[in-house]
Amino acid sequence: MKVLILNPNTTATVTERIVAAARPAAAPGTELVPMTAPRGLPYIANRAEAVIGGAIALEMLAERHHEVDAAVIAAFGDPALGGARELYDIPIVGMTEAGILTACMLGRRFAIVTFSTGLTSWYRECIAWHGLDRRCAAIRALDGGFASLADVQTEHRAGLVALANRTVADDGADVIVFAGAPLAGLAASVRDEIAVPVVDCAVAALKQAEALVALKPRKPVAGAFRRPAAKPSTGLAPALAKRIAHE
Amino acid sequence: MKVLILNPNTTATVTERIVAAARPAAAPGTELVPMTAPRGLPYIANRAEAVIGGAIALEMLAERHHEVDAAVIAAFGDPALGGARELYDIPIVGMTEAGILTACMLGRRFAIVTFSTGLTSWYRECIAWHGLDRRCAAIRALDGGFASLADVQTEHRAGLVALANRTVADDGADVIVFAGAPLAGLAASVRDEIAVPVVDCAVAALKQAEALVALKPRKPVAGAFRRPAAKPSTGLAPALAKRIAHE
Amino acid sequence: MKVLILNPNTTATVTERIVAAARPAAAPGTELVPMTAPRGLPYIANRAEAVIGGAIALEMLAERHHEVDAAVIAAFGDPALGGARELYDIPIVGMTEAGILTACMLGRRFAIVTFSTGLTSWYRECIAWHGLDRRCAAIRALDGGFASLADVQTEHRAGLVALANRTVADDGADVIVFAGAPLAGLAASVRDEIAVPVVDCAVAALKQAEALVALKPRKPVAGAFRRPAAKPSTGLAPALAKRIAHE
Amino acid sequence: MKVLILNPNTTATVTERIVAAARPAAAPGTELVPMTAPRGLPYIANRAEAVIGGAIALEMLAERHHEVDAAVIAAFGDPALGGARELYDIPIVGMTEAGILTACMLGRRFAIVTFSTGLTSWYRECIAWHGLDRRCAAIRALDGGFASLADVQTEHRAGLVALANRTVADDGADVIVFAGAPLAGLAASVRDEIAVPVVDCAVAALKQAEALVALKPRKPVAGAFRRPAAKPSTGLAPALAKRIAHE
Amino acid sequence: MKVLILNPNTTATVTERIVAAARPAAAPGTELVPMTAPRGLPYIANRAEAVIGGAIALEMLAERHHEVDAAVIAAFGDPALGGARELYDIPIVGMTEAGILTACMLGRRFAIVTFSTGLTSWYRECIAWHGLDRRCAAIRALDGGFASLADVQTEHRAGLVALANRTVADDGADVIVFAGAPLAGLAASVRDEIAVPVVDCAVAALKQAEALVALKPRKPVAGAFRRPAAKPSTGLAPALAKRIAHE
Amino acid sequence: MKVLILNPNTTATVTERIVAAARPAAAPGTELVPMTAPRGLPYIANRAEAVIGGAIALEMLAERHHEVDAAVIAAFGDPALGGARELYDIPIVGMTEAGILTACMLGRRFAIVTFSTGLTSWYRECIAWHGLDRRCAAIRALDGGFASLADVQTEHRAGLVALANRTVADDGADVIVFAGAPLAGLAASVRDEIAVPVVDCAVAALKQAEALVALKPRKPVAGAFRRPAAKPSTGLAPALAKRIAHE
Repeated sequence: MKVLILNPNTTATVTERIVAAARPAAAPGTELVPMTAPRGLPYIANRAEAVIGGAIALEMLAERHHEVDAAVIAAFGDPALGGARELYDIPIVGMTEAGILTACMLGRRFAIVTFSTGLTSWYRECIAWHGLDRRCAAIRALDGGFASLADVQTEHRAGLVALANRTVADDGADVIVFAGAPLAGLAASVRDEIAVPVVDCAVAALKQAEALVALKPRKPVAGAFRRPAAKPSTGLAPALAKRIAHE
Repeated sequence: MKVLILNPNTTATVTERIVAAARPAAAPGTELVPMTAPRGLPYIANRAEAVIGGAIALEMLAERHHEVDAAVIAAFGDPALGGARELYDIPIVGMTEAGILTACMLGRRFAIVTFSTGLTSWYRECIAWHGLDRRCAAIRALDGGFASLADVQTEHRAGLVALANRTVADDGADVIVFAGAPLAGLAASVRDEIAVPVVDCAVAALKQAEALVALKPRKPVAGAFRRPAAKPSTGLAPALAKRIAHE
Repeated sequence: MKVLILNPNTTATVTERIVAAARPAAAPGTELVPMTAPRGLPYIANRAEAVIGGAIALEMLAERHHEVDAAVIAAFGDPALGGARELYDIPIVGMTEAGILTACMLGRRFAIVTFSTGLTSWYRECIAWHGLDRRCAAIRALDGGFASLADVQTEHRAGLVALANRTVADDGADVIVFAGAPLAGLAASVRDEIAVPVVDCAVAALKQAEALVALKPRKPVAGAFRRPAAKPSTGLAPALAKRIAHE
Repeated sequence: MKVLILNPNTTATVTERIVAAARPAAAPGTELVPMTAPRGLPYIANRAEAVIGGAIALEMLAERHHEVDAAVIAAFGDPALGGARELYDIPIVGMTEAGILTACMLGRRFAIVTFSTGLTSWYRECIAWHGLDRRCAAIRALDGGFASLADVQTEHRAGLVALANRTVADDGADVIVFAGAPLAGLAASVRDEIAVPVVDCAVAALKQAEALVALKPRKPVAGAFRRPAAKPSTGLAPALAKRIAHE
Repeated sequence: MKVLILNPNTTATVTERIVAAARPAAAPGTELVPMTAPRGLPYIANRAEAVIGGAIALEMLAERHHEVDAAVIAAFGDPALGGARELYDIPIVGMTEAGILTACMLGRRFAIVTFSTGLTSWYRECIAWHGLDRRCAAIRALDGGFASLADVQTEHRAGLVALANRTVADDGADVIVFAGAPLAGLAASVRDEIAVPVVDCAVAALKQAEALVALKPRKPVAGAFRRPAAKPSTGLAPALAKRIAHE
Repeated sequence: MKVLILNPNTTATVTERIVAAARPAAAPGTELVPMTAPRGLPYIANRAEAVIGGAIALEMLAERHHEVDAAVIAAFGDPALGGARELYDIPIVGMTEAGILTACMLGRRFAIVTFSTGLTSWYRECIAWHGLDRRCAAIRALDGGFASLADVQTEHRAGLVALANRTVADDGADVIVFAGAPLAGLAASVRDEIAVPVVDCAVAALKQAEALVALKPRKPVAGAFRRPAAKPSTGLAPALAKRIAHE
């Protein structure tokens, strides 16, 4: 089974980090196919960038969807997840979605812990889109900024652990979801320092992709994610335009 | 006051229809500035197209936001509305948003009436994003397709009126919102044939844009819609890239 | 267009303050018609007083509804708003309703900021009646009382600004709604001292009244706000009794 | 224990019917004290009339609250219930409130069954005010009108039983609440013809009043229902004005 | 009328305490029939124990249901309440259920106050099962443990009063519900030390049982609580097995 | 990795069916360990039986939890799932939970389709416990009964397919979850006859168990599912009593 690890950001080191975090959890026979955005932003961090990165994710899927059995949209916030499910026939999983759905099996209420307060309002929307706001105890973020994307999890390791334990004590969180692709892999290294289970979204997304493939779901011909009728377009990336045109 | 009527679709006749519907409702001194997408889809009709059209809307705003006092994203589904509010300093109104918020002052529960069943699942999401699902009695759509965008409201006038009255009787709707840019202007012509008030989203959006300008709201420097920090990018439309880079 | 500014309280200086706050925002051609309650309470501040003031508002509308194109019920808490919409044919807007619906276009979550803790539980009910509780980040009130209604906004200016900024920081509010008719006009004067947009309910209500008139909504003959059948009564104010009796 | 059965309508035969329905269920030692509105509407049937009747209910309580241990506001829709709890020191129960809270102990989801479609939208609001909308399977009403208030339950007995059984089958209701004071007493007579338990709101309200008296609750000095501070007023009923003024 | 006070725990002194708290509130003619679990846990304090105690409660009801007119499941958390309603024909009331439904008539939002933080997550579920989470201001618990079940309310009297007043001030609670069978009787003794009404769940449950008996509800033959069809079983307590088998 | 397939019912053929449905989806190296309840009911079909079967499930886990890496509670309705997570250290997955969480990645709204109307009210509760009621389009059941548990899916194959397609058309379901252990395996055989993806709960549960094991979650020492303190008991199954006593 091949799973596309589609990073809609342009930072290849983040793609590598996600793949490195997920690979040890792969079932025998599962192959991870990394793909980094050829254009766009270095890191999606708000609604505007999620729309831009989402449109690029759709272009990227147009290039590669026929080569894989499933895809992970490997950016927190699940950019274009609904649209991707409409356009393509393979199972597609979002990293936030996988993280929070999986967390629901480890506690009654999860908390999102991340590294920048600028993300919380947008994350709240994302959780609500999945209909899981009532199972979210809190979204907590470190106050400061960060020196580099690549180093954020080492730079802020202690702060993130403390913040996670604080949200357990203060907000009644039963499970922690580290949010943001740059935190992929952190969960494993801090496992014993936090009082409740911690979900690594990269691992969760890969396992959920495997689960969907195992179910052998048909492409719907009705409902939310049936494929839209063929349509012309102007000025879109050629592969995406062809997919939309059913060509 | 200048209000940009930004159609993120490529069909200029739809832009004209929206402007024609809204203009009679403009306050003295309000000028409508129409703008049609230079690239993209002829008509946004699902989540995938809303992401693509949303990214294009952000490009269009980058070109024109400094020339106007407010903007209307003139497509049902409010593509990129949240992102637009982050990136730009002027008030920005979505056509769905304006329609349903305004409807809340004319009844306890509104119904969305539209011309294609393929839209209902996506519209439900849109209403939930605005937090108004509990005030939505129903989303109802005609079963069939349509011959042309330009003619959909004349072609299906009788069907839409009947459907509106049926949702009043069956779903307890107190007010009808005709959804989809191609239906702009229809409300006025069927006003006396439907048992409850009917909201024209084009009119509502223009009046809400005027209302926001009258409030003279500051650009937030905190919260959901503060402007994101400057960020580099690759391969984006130049004006949008500059806006994101604070250049 | 004439808009009745109906203050269901007996304090004429509050009526004047509301009119003074709203008038500069009126479109050319919009005339504000002030009306102060001839009997009742000096200021509605709880559920009991809202019922009493609401019944008086219905009497006042019976006197003047035929002279105007729309009405604003100019007291926070929207006393008798639903009942007024049933009984009368013109568009009627509540000051709370207008404030919070408008706030929804300026942020993802609004906070209500007011001058007395005694108001918060009742305001919470009011927001829930409009179905917008999920978009309300917080309702915050100054702890102390106030010397006089007329001076509350000058007396407590600094405290209200500080409270507004605190709810932005602590509750994640994206937009502030100053609540209570005595605060009409305050928003404009503190605009630059608060980190997010501030909504003046008097301005919002006037603009929403204009928006509804522009939509030319019919009087419903079905649903929540159709006119009740004619009914006799005993001991009610004569104009109201006539309206109820369809005389 | 004396329980005031306060009918905020002017129809004495309805008061009698309510008392007749409730009296057999009274505990030994519980005395019912009937009171019919001296002015107002013959029957409250919408939001406007609930505000008018609510203000009258507050006047009536001002006359009699010191003579009784508890009061029932004996009209569906619970007019002025919250305000009454603020102003007075005795426990006060609403007839709708008592009916639906009691129904929650007899099934997972209740249905409201009533005799006029004009009531459903307003009833929905009432149930939401109590926070029980998620436990309400449906609100169902007979289509036609009715010849007289006094005879509505005999005139429409068969129709109401059929409607109750239909909502059990179609909406999954586990318990039926007959709504509207004119239906007091009907539940007992149709008990064996409906597949699920039926709640008589008059009985439920009396028993809940007894329950509250048994709890000996203090008058709150904090929270939603503490007594408002003394306040002057103009033109209100003298006893009510005195109560508001703490005289 | 006989009301079974069924304690699904094995601690007879807690049964006695509940009966002692409830008896003074009984109507003339109401007899309380105490029953303590013959096996199980000394005190149910989490989900696992609620399932175990719930199964035992069903066994206990099988022994005694035909001797009484109603039953109270006298443990916080309402173990097996839904199942008991399916299997048996008499009205059955839960102690949590009775406490919070009754509290809804004394304030807009109640708070649960209890003696151990370990209970809060499970209590939250219980309140949600009753659909009353939106009326719950907070669930607050003392931090420490307790020396003995029998003495918890004397040992922690001061702490519980302080905690109750703090949740009134901080969380906006309008009414306090003391939770946990060992706190039965405490409400009466601290009545004047807390700023809002306090509900004793033992009293509330008894009065609600009386209310249900007064309504003479039929055993449903449809809906959630109709009796399940006869079924064989293996290894269950004989009386329960017979009840399930319709023997 | 060993996964306990714990059937809390006494019907071994149902256990076999579940294992047969799940086994082909297992990752290489995953071993399924079947276990059938030694006492209890042949099939759990309501709240009462879920409590009884839940207590038995806790006994069964006490016997085997130390031999496996994870467990699936293989009955619809997830009996004792929360309690099992408190008492034991291994990941535990419910069959309903796994089915509906997985369905959330294949559509916006799922429908539950099952073979007996008697199950719908209880299933609704189960979905609400997981906080996913807003993502549930409908719960639909065949009207009739069934001849035997073993044959229900062959006997009613056509009816279930038709019902599934009807809920897609009428309720807007995007994905179907066949509910009830006797339907394990049906999804695969009807895949091409239903317009949307179909989730087999047995497959979903196994894959989710694998996913949880891959995350290596720690046993929480705080929050909802920390292990309760040691406690004595009377008359419980010996292994369960020991587990509760920390022996």
